[in-house]
Amino acid sequence: MTSSEVENVDLNSAPAEQCDLLQDTPAVILVRPQLGENIGTAARAMANFGLADLRIVAPRDGWPNEAARAAAASTGCHVVDGAEIFENLEQAINDLHFLAATTARPRDMVKPVIAPETAVAEFTGRMRRGERCGVLFGPERSGLDNDQMALADVIISAPVDPTYASLNLAQAVLILGYEWIKAHGGKALGRETAFDGPAREGLDLQGQRPATKAELLGLFEHLESALDTSGFLYPPEKRPAMVRNIRNMLQRMGATEQEVRTLRGIVAALESGHKNRGGRP
Amino acid sequence: MTSSEVENVDLNSAPAEQCDLLQDTPAVILVRPQLGENIGTAARAMANFGLADLRIVAPRDGWPNEAARAAAASTGCHVVDGAEIFENLEQAINDLHFLAATTARPRDMVKPVIAPETAVAEFTGRMRRGERCGVLFGPERSGLDNDQMALADVIISAPVDPTYASLNLAQAVLILGYEWIKAHGGKALGRETAFDGPAREGLDLQGQRPATKAELLGLFEHLESALDTSGFLYPPEKRPAMVRNIRNMLQRMGATEQEVRTLRGIVAALESGHKNRGGRP
Repeated sequence: MTSSEVENVDLNSAPAEQCDLLQDTPAVILVRPQLGENIGTAARAMANFGLADLRIVAPRDGWPNEAARAAAASTGCHVVDGAEIFENLEQAINDLHFLAATTARPRDMVKPVIAPETAVAEFTGRMRRGERCGVLFGPERSGLDNDQMALADVIISAPVDPTYASLNLAQAVLILGYEWIKAHGGKALGRETAFDGPAREGLDLQGQRPATKAELLGLFEHLESALDTSGFLYPPEKRPAMVRNIRNMLQRMGATEQEVRTLRGIVAALESGHKNRGGRP
Repeated sequence: MTSSEVENVDLNSAPAEQCDLLQDTPAVILVRPQLGENIGTAARAMANFGLADLRIVAPRDGWPNEAARAAAASTGCHVVDGAEIFENLEQAINDLHFLAATTARPRDMVKPVIAPETAVAEFTGRMRRGERCGVLFGPERSGLDNDQMALADVIISAPVDPTYASLNLAQAVLILGYEWIKAHGGKALGRETAFDGPAREGLDLQGQRPATKAELLGLFEHLESALDTSGFLYPPEKRPAMVRNIRNMLQRMGATEQEVRTLRGIVAALESGHKNRGGRP
């Protein structure tokens, strides 16, 4: 994958305050990753979702790794550049208080298994109490071995179709990051001024103001008058129900003041269509 | 990325029943995708999370595309092989009742913006009532254009760090799929034995069925033709934006099939108003 080819965003950016991403986010710990490209795409996914603490244990192809920087692209290169490299896993997790592991296969281990959003809630509670948290991701081919798994407090399990359960490294990191930002709105814990929950939703009015009911009634009466003239609201005994149906439809639009004016312009244009026909290009 | 290198799972597979994924999942519609590799990784993400209805509009490099199959790997190749190819977007959405768009940038459009999990809840409610739903993803470089966006009922906005908001195609598809499987546990709607969601909410359609996109497009074209005749869509350089604004307004109504017929009747009545004037009481 040429990262420059996929640089565009496919989902809209939700409004959020600037934040200092380098403090108080859970550590992403890649254990003996093989391909620089996978390190880079994982770093990029971290950047997308406000994770910044990348730790890499014994990367197969050494460090620094240009393939990792290239795959991270402009979005994730600061995460790659800020990564800490460790010779062994124990050094990488020394400062952490709580560690989760991700794994491909069921293991013969008695260890709690939790969903990604539950892990994020657990991290959040602990980090608010001053603890440091991290998540282990194993090598691409083999995953974490049992000794590495044994260092973790919990196993994170994401829901996948059991028939097609194979997630790549960046996808797994992305799911963690997505649940993190859903819980924290892109703000690192240390800089939060207020917990603001998920992305803002609702109708984007583009700075226009919603129409008043008076404006809407003006539109209704204009349209109904034109429809009376044309004979559409006929026969008279059916007129009240027809008018109600039309008003219900138009009401549901939630039109802005500007849109009501446009609709009145449309009615007027259609009404007088014959006068203008041929008069303009 | 060599797909064979990233074949291993990093997150554990959650227990879930076998399911028939080929029925009743929202359509993933890739509009003019550029790289086969991105089609393949998107298909693979679909397979991971139980989505199966892939529609591709005018893929740049033609179809079939070996790069897409290779990138989908064993996990996603059945999704690639089952993809439907369309020459234009209108054909691809004809049978759908509800359409969401994903976008990189704020647009000058008055359209509801919802989070991925809200979109999934909306799809679920509609699909339980027999409606068909889909999500548009634009070309890698440019995203959806405004005319394409205007065909959608809602915009899906995923929370991302605003400074590093660039998600690639597969990541965007993955987030949709992840929210889908979180809500449905890998079970397609058609195979559920019991209603297990929250109480049904939303618009009471009074037994009418929602309009298909084909019916809505018919209304748009009818109205726009009438407005061309009347000179309303003038001057020509403003026509595209005017058409988009009108389509966005009418789209937001969520019209039923009966309502679309009423609206077409209104347009026809207003157009021919002068002929009927005085002809009826």
